[in-house]
Amino acid sequence: MIIVMKAGVSPEQLAQVTKRVESLGLKPHVIEGTERTVVAVVGAEQDATVSGMETLPGVAKVLPILAPYKVASREVQPEQTVITAGPLVIGGGRVGVIAGPCSVESREQILASARAVKAAGAAGLRGGAFKPRTSPYSFQGLKEEGLRLLAEAREETGQAVVTEVVAPEDVPLVARYADVLQIGARNMQNYRLLEAVGRCDKAVLLKRGPAATVDEMLLAAEYILDGGNRQVMLCERGIRTFESHTRFTLPLATVPWLQARTHLPVVIDPSHGTGHANLVPSMAAAAVAAGADGLIIEVHPDPANAASDGAQTLDFTVFEQTMDTCRRVAQAVGRRMA
Amino acid sequence: MIIVMKAGVSPEQLAQVTKRVESLGLKPHVIEGTERTVVAVVGAEQDATVSGMETLPGVAKVLPILAPYKVASREVQPEQTVITAGPLVIGGGRVGVIAGPCSVESREQILASARAVKAAGAAGLRGGAFKPRTSPYSFQGLKEEGLRLLAEAREETGQAVVTEVVAPEDVPLVARYADVLQIGARNMQNYRLLEAVGRCDKAVLLKRGPAATVDEMLLAAEYILDGGNRQVMLCERGIRTFESHTRFTLPLATVPWLQARTHLPVVIDPSHGTGHANLVPSMAAAAVAAGADGLIIEVHPDPANAASDGAQTLDFTVFEQTMDTCRRVAQAVGRRMA
Amino acid sequence: MIIVMKAGVSPEQLAQVTKRVESLGLKPHVIEGTERTVVAVVGAEQDATVSGMETLPGVAKVLPILAPYKVASREVQPEQTVITAGPLVIGGGRVGVIAGPCSVESREQILASARAVKAAGAAGLRGGAFKPRTSPYSFQGLKEEGLRLLAEAREETGQAVVTEVVAPEDVPLVARYADVLQIGARNMQNYRLLEAVGRCDKAVLLKRGPAATVDEMLLAAEYILDGGNRQVMLCERGIRTFESHTRFTLPLATVPWLQARTHLPVVIDPSHGTGHANLVPSMAAAAVAAGADGLIIEVHPDPANAASDGAQTLDFTVFEQTMDTCRRVAQAVGRRMA
Amino acid sequence: MIIVMKAGVSPEQLAQVTKRVESLGLKPHVIEGTERTVVAVVGAEQDATVSGMETLPGVAKVLPILAPYKVASREVQPEQTVITAGPLVIGGGRVGVIAGPCSVESREQILASARAVKAAGAAGLRGGAFKPRTSPYSFQGLKEEGLRLLAEAREETGQAVVTEVVAPEDVPLVARYADVLQIGARNMQNYRLLEAVGRCDKAVLLKRGPAATVDEMLLAAEYILDGGNRQVMLCERGIRTFESHTRFTLPLATVPWLQARTHLPVVIDPSHGTGHANLVPSMAAAAVAAGADGLIIEVHPDPANAASDGAQTLDFTVFEQTMDTCRRVAQAVGRRMA
Repeated sequence: MIIVMKAGVSPEQLAQVTKRVESLGLKPHVIEGTERTVVAVVGAEQDATVSGMETLPGVAKVLPILAPYKVASREVQPEQTVITAGPLVIGGGRVGVIAGPCSVESREQILASARAVKAAGAAGLRGGAFKPRTSPYSFQGLKEEGLRLLAEAREETGQAVVTEVVAPEDVPLVARYADVLQIGARNMQNYRLLEAVGRCDKAVLLKRGPAATVDEMLLAAEYILDGGNRQVMLCERGIRTFESHTRFTLPLATVPWLQARTHLPVVIDPSHGTGHANLVPSMAAAAVAAGADGLIIEVHPDPANAASDGAQTLDFTVFEQTMDTCRRVAQAVGRRMA
Repeated sequence: MIIVMKAGVSPEQLAQVTKRVESLGLKPHVIEGTERTVVAVVGAEQDATVSGMETLPGVAKVLPILAPYKVASREVQPEQTVITAGPLVIGGGRVGVIAGPCSVESREQILASARAVKAAGAAGLRGGAFKPRTSPYSFQGLKEEGLRLLAEAREETGQAVVTEVVAPEDVPLVARYADVLQIGARNMQNYRLLEAVGRCDKAVLLKRGPAATVDEMLLAAEYILDGGNRQVMLCERGIRTFESHTRFTLPLATVPWLQARTHLPVVIDPSHGTGHANLVPSMAAAAVAAGADGLIIEVHPDPANAASDGAQTLDFTVFEQTMDTCRRVAQAVGRRMA
Repeated sequence: MIIVMKAGVSPEQLAQVTKRVESLGLKPHVIEGTERTVVAVVGAEQDATVSGMETLPGVAKVLPILAPYKVASREVQPEQTVITAGPLVIGGGRVGVIAGPCSVESREQILASARAVKAAGAAGLRGGAFKPRTSPYSFQGLKEEGLRLLAEAREETGQAVVTEVVAPEDVPLVARYADVLQIGARNMQNYRLLEAVGRCDKAVLLKRGPAATVDEMLLAAEYILDGGNRQVMLCERGIRTFESHTRFTLPLATVPWLQARTHLPVVIDPSHGTGHANLVPSMAAAAVAAGADGLIIEVHPDPANAASDGAQTLDFTVFEQTMDTCRRVAQAVGRRMA
Repeated sequence: MIIVMKAGVSPEQLAQVTKRVESLGLKPHVIEGTERTVVAVVGAEQDATVSGMETLPGVAKVLPILAPYKVASREVQPEQTVITAGPLVIGGGRVGVIAGPCSVESREQILASARAVKAAGAAGLRGGAFKPRTSPYSFQGLKEEGLRLLAEAREETGQAVVTEVVAPEDVPLVARYADVLQIGARNMQNYRLLEAVGRCDKAVLLKRGPAATVDEMLLAAEYILDGGNRQVMLCERGIRTFESHTRFTLPLATVPWLQARTHLPVVIDPSHGTGHANLVPSMAAAAVAAGADGLIIEVHPDPANAASDGAQTLDFTVFEQTMDTCRRVAQAVGRRMA
């Protein structure tokens, strides 16, 4: 860390800081600038010491230097992680697509969706069985019955099933049916849940919380990796900003930024990222052009009657057109869609 | 809901919309404006129908009318809820104060803190035993041992113990020791946890998530209330904005806005809300002036050596001065600090 | 506008509202819902009446219905505006590219830049002569000398010159040299400046302010259009959000959203939109995939020594590669780069 | 500045960086950490060099150390600037209040407002004559006639007139009538305008732009100070965030943060800061408790019929009550309202 002292710091204040640094087993380098004195600290910095150091007299601010994540870092593993779940491949120059309804609503609905999105090229089938809903009065999902229907669809189409798990105690149940466990945006920092999927042998799709920094997302991944599960993909699904014409603001620069710093593949969710079906096709194409390793898209036989998220859901026809465009864009940027 | 049609909507499109409205058991009122036709819908609107309606041809946008929360609303219960936990009273013209360290670190630390904050006027003692931490490599709390130390402090000082619970399965354990269960900002939309504390007989302090709207906070409270627990206080602790000179941006207008819409009392956390100890006293006073029903403040015998959140933690002396100022401000706005 | 009344509104309060509506020459439609009464108002709503109506007793909230912009709207002009300035064409299925240094620094620098970006396919040459700088101590641009150098470069390469004008009194001078006048993000709501370029016969590139909503951007354009100048292109260059790993957050969903509502073409600035050169190529490609009508990119012979914005500036080699990729992506989405 | 090198940086890359630092007349200190090498640079850092340095091979990031403002800094002038304009005093333990309508609409309206707000204790009278409006179709103000009416009101009440100037060419005219020139939020980075008021002998109230950082606000002030005008007060009026229940989010922590770093006094605008009249009284009181040196509040004889900003405007009765509360709060925090 770098400790920037206030102008006019006294020798006693400076001595107190360097003493504190040394008491932590770290080595202080004092550099007297023309306008400021800074103390560069060599050694493993930690949250608590960085935070506490700020309260010492004469300290103006403390700048951390090291990225706080480790196992997720490209420095630790230079080659990209490739996630494989049945026919679904995410990473390694392949753009994997996961599609399907927000919620599993019925046998007919999920089977029709699975067939249609498979025909259009989606190797993964999404569908929520356990639905975390903002309001306690909204549809909460079919629960285990929903999982059973997803498994039935997989039997027919062979797709990988991607579905959300919302609590640690549900992990064994959901893992019995799913190929990929999704951690939703609201649960990105539900550490017990992260630990539970970290002990599991299924791939994990970790969604970014709408107010989470990229470092916080990587640290959430670190909880899973630290538990022993290395099959983690990161999903950008939009952040909360002042914009209200979209549901969230989808920052695609997350893709190249993450890819430079982590070996974990990056998936984009243009459905939640925009909130409006008419914006999804362009943003799906843009995500592929930005280098995304995967897409997750909401598709429903009849969006106007969907039990949840209808406004941002594509029908089969538009999804198929979107896939065609994405396939051409993938090729244009040297990638391949299954 | 109000359905705004596009300019040049066709009679067929309009008919499709009104038919859909009727099929939901609702009543459409078509109003032909000079530039737009709108359909005002009478009856109980629901998330899913509002969302799906947007995808119908000819629809420009859909505006919800009703507030989505019910039990939390002032319309349902006009008089304010007053939370009482031992000597701690939040609401009803009283400003209750909860203070103590971010984490329980040791017997000496928590006892010294309890004595000091009690002497300064805090009827509630805070202290984290189960710590949700951004990094898996940070101090995670003393867990049950921390709870025991809090209870020991209560035995001496008589304060109400306020501590965080991070998972549904921990609720019985934490409720055995605590007087008030805190739901942290990261868990504001952990619905299983909300349901678990909703079935519990201890008061709950629900922190606003850093990207949560006020409606989402009220709906999170609704999960707890809906479970039968009516002892809920709402805590504003700052939101994520572009500002980086503070850890979060603390929007005190939340206080009068919430108080006009809900009977639940409102607590302000100026420690997390600013992230820097030197900003806490002013913002504590401002919170009281804004009409807050309570304050929760981080205080530690030696902030520079705190195991977590040192930068935003007050020492005993500054806390005491802060309380003196807050007491005078409370009086100036017609409120009373215990 | 829709006026939503509070629960329990009295007949007198309702009468006061409808009377006020009628006094404004508008027609109120009272709709008694099951939980709320709303007043739908037919006629031309205006800012001031919408705002003032909120203060009447019994009013819960007021929802505007009409988009506030007129001339910029697709409803007024369904076919897209195509901007032509010399060889530069923006709109109509063509993706026009404007490139060059942040600031004009010297004859050599701007000539070298013009040649290189032209060779790579940029029909427009950017370069700042009047530089609005956050600090009064930063380089403020070469002013008229910079304009002269830009004109000299144009003589050689034939490109369209795009340069910023920062004050109404400079419009005649800058218009003498430039082909496209740029209104910078900080000046998006400098109405005198908008009016001045509105009276001018040069095309205008209007940058979105970092905290401006899309409606505010369209209303800023409306100032220019209202002055008689119809050659306006809108430029998304990123918004201020909590993200700090990029300089701004670049929301590409702006492209399809705007294109559905306005006939004005949309240009993306991936340089300011990210702030880091290594993120620019991906976001340029993503912008083209999202359907952008143009790109504006910072390019410099030696970014590390640029007088401004070095961190986000491409060198010639990377720019050329970026153009190659963008050309392929344009084709993939049915567009054409000059 | 501190230059953080990438892990695995080569000696050649490091040498290139130190050579570049030296070529700028600065002194590099290389510190080899356990995980990272950093180069601490001694000497006057500048925007351009900080920015360009990032593009050198092997550089991970560049951290600026020095605050970019100078004349505004407490280090340059430790004692607070006190602004005096007629009876209005801002700073030095006094809380000055400026109140009046958003726009000057008529002789009756402004005279009635002036009398009422003076009677309630406002030493400053606000009123817009030149109105920067989001839409070209909104009321644009009475212009010079408005200024004349303000001057007439001053003749009667003796208050200081505070009014906005929107363009450099208007400065002489507005300065002829006004005691304090207001720079609106949209013009915070209109540098020509800042320079123009910097050459003027009237006090300036500089409003923070809704997306401006506190450093950017201080640098805008620096433009005025650098021009020779030292009578500058800073005004926090709310920032753009994801919150939509208020017009802007009013971050009162700006008050103590600024007061620690600059000698310029800080004024709070709770009207724009909330956008809703019913939130203004609490936030005015909170601002005073937070230590604000002044308040600027919108007051109108009939808010429901105001030509602009009606929703956030107080009537005379509520303003008077607000002033009473603020007076008591000021006393509680050791300040004095005139």
